[in-house]
Amino acid sequence: MKKLINKPEAVVTEMLAGMVAAHPEYLRKVDEYNCLVRVDAPVAGKVGIISGGGSGHEPAHAGFIGKGMLDGACAGNVFSSPTPDHFYAAAKAVDSGAGVLMVIKNYSGDLMNSEMAAEMAEAEDVKVTRVIVNDDVAVENSTWTTGRRGIAGTVFVHKVAGAKAAQGASLEEVTAVAEKTNANVRSMGMALTPCIVPVAGKANFSLGDNEMEIGMGIHGEPGINRTCLDTADNVTALLTEKIVADLPYQAGDEVAVLVNGLGATPLMELYIVNRKVSEVLAAKGIKVHKTYVGEYMTSLEMAGCSVTLLKLDAELKELLDEPADTPAFKQF
Amino acid sequence: MKKLINKPEAVVTEMLAGMVAAHPEYLRKVDEYNCLVRVDAPVAGKVGIISGGGSGHEPAHAGFIGKGMLDGACAGNVFSSPTPDHFYAAAKAVDSGAGVLMVIKNYSGDLMNSEMAAEMAEAEDVKVTRVIVNDDVAVENSTWTTGRRGIAGTVFVHKVAGAKAAQGASLEEVTAVAEKTNANVRSMGMALTPCIVPVAGKANFSLGDNEMEIGMGIHGEPGINRTCLDTADNVTALLTEKIVADLPYQAGDEVAVLVNGLGATPLMELYIVNRKVSEVLAAKGIKVHKTYVGEYMTSLEMAGCSVTLLKLDAELKELLDEPADTPAFKQF
Repeated sequence: MKKLINKPEAVVTEMLAGMVAAHPEYLRKVDEYNCLVRVDAPVAGKVGIISGGGSGHEPAHAGFIGKGMLDGACAGNVFSSPTPDHFYAAAKAVDSGAGVLMVIKNYSGDLMNSEMAAEMAEAEDVKVTRVIVNDDVAVENSTWTTGRRGIAGTVFVHKVAGAKAAQGASLEEVTAVAEKTNANVRSMGMALTPCIVPVAGKANFSLGDNEMEIGMGIHGEPGINRTCLDTADNVTALLTEKIVADLPYQAGDEVAVLVNGLGATPLMELYIVNRKVSEVLAAKGIKVHKTYVGEYMTSLEMAGCSVTLLKLDAELKELLDEPADTPAFKQF
Repeated sequence: MKKLINKPEAVVTEMLAGMVAAHPEYLRKVDEYNCLVRVDAPVAGKVGIISGGGSGHEPAHAGFIGKGMLDGACAGNVFSSPTPDHFYAAAKAVDSGAGVLMVIKNYSGDLMNSEMAAEMAEAEDVKVTRVIVNDDVAVENSTWTTGRRGIAGTVFVHKVAGAKAAQGASLEEVTAVAEKTNANVRSMGMALTPCIVPVAGKANFSLGDNEMEIGMGIHGEPGINRTCLDTADNVTALLTEKIVADLPYQAGDEVAVLVNGLGATPLMELYIVNRKVSEVLAAKGIKVHKTYVGEYMTSLEMAGCSVTLLKLDAELKELLDEPADTPAFKQF
């Protein structure tokens, strides 16, 4: 295992310390919890938005804390859900009285723990709603999931809901637009290599030198099939076609695109993938409003990528275009 | 070789196509050259700033094209300098009449080709200056370098010079502040794994399962020594101490920090590194004004990182803090 770490057991707390040291103008830690929140949380009168899940997906989620996106995020152990007390602590820390939306990726542990935290918060009169993101079209059920997995499309939910909350919308309105975003977002990924969870010390699955896995989850959960290596264009067309067919996205639709690196994939390759995504969409008459290319929802040092499309109506487009200022997502 | 590419020979042109498709609001391509420039280049009355070098270091350099940073960048083949005609085409495309600064990393090929391009441009009455960045404290001469190599500190030169040019400064003033930035910036890197240049198809060097290389260059050039794997804290302390001793940075100094990932290193690990950088600097009484953590100057899918410090005076601090809006570097 080649990693720039100290003790495998300490990676999350040391990472959070390094984040706060890097970004004190954005982030502060909540007491003894593995939660980071906006330095100015709670923001008076504003709905608070928190997210979280297992660590290892950085910059998700704490990298998206700041104006126009999240108010807080909990970091579980690597690929393992935060316990309810962390979600609860984050919810309490960001509640200004206007209530808190939890944006949760659809994994059993995250669902259970965030639900328990929501009940704990509500018992103290913090209004809590939850939106469960399930954008991954690859498989219907998976290792840690009933229903579809939540992957990189979650970032669009953060962005759109965050913009709505920044405009002063109510908890009901922010929740509704987060639900609408989830209903219009679809993603799918693929992997060339596995990754190593620090405390495990070995790869979480194996792939032959000539193999890749289509539909791989962000924790190494199995995808649709394991195939021989293929060209970037063929792989990209396969992912994009499956995503487009799912909603479906149609000629005349306007979309936002996210080409997301899983950790070890050079930006060069992500742009080569984006070239093909834009070609496939253009051929279908689907208009690209905005494109994001980079690492937004990773799997440690896994090599591979995911493609995400978000279908935009006037409201989603306006909210997506609003400014955001966070460590990992800045937009004028 | 596991890569998301089509033909190894096409990676640069396809990457550039994917970048323009992703960021048409920032970038356009210059005719048949592997150069991207600001979509609104040349900007009337403003000094143009270009950079460039071999590809494989993305987002450097084209990802830094936009308001407050670069006006253009040339992309050579992977780890290979752009030929003079590309640098020349970029210089011509961004010159508004106020002249052009070339920010060049200190590698023999880049020096030679950019110098020839500068002469070609000057023959057509384009005023050109060059600043050669040589921030890497690891080794004095290297595989492709006489003198120190230019690595991630180049990004600070882009940022500071770009801000100065945006303020309407003259070519002489922009050049002077770029020189001052280079004089105050120091970096050093390390690698855990090699990377694969697509047309070569195999790793550019080899490291044992238990080895890392300290002072590794961004093309896999040898560093200071090859050692056994060590903790993130020890590795970080070693890099930071060597950098601090070089300028030297002293108690009471104020610095900007860049913890740069080389490609395959998870953001989690970069933040763990930053935790230690901030501790080492605090213990020395060196104040951190601003910290950047992420991938700015990569080596394809190499695992490892570099640490960069920039000593700030009032002018550098003000220019560093100015806004920038580019695909890969945004700051409010």
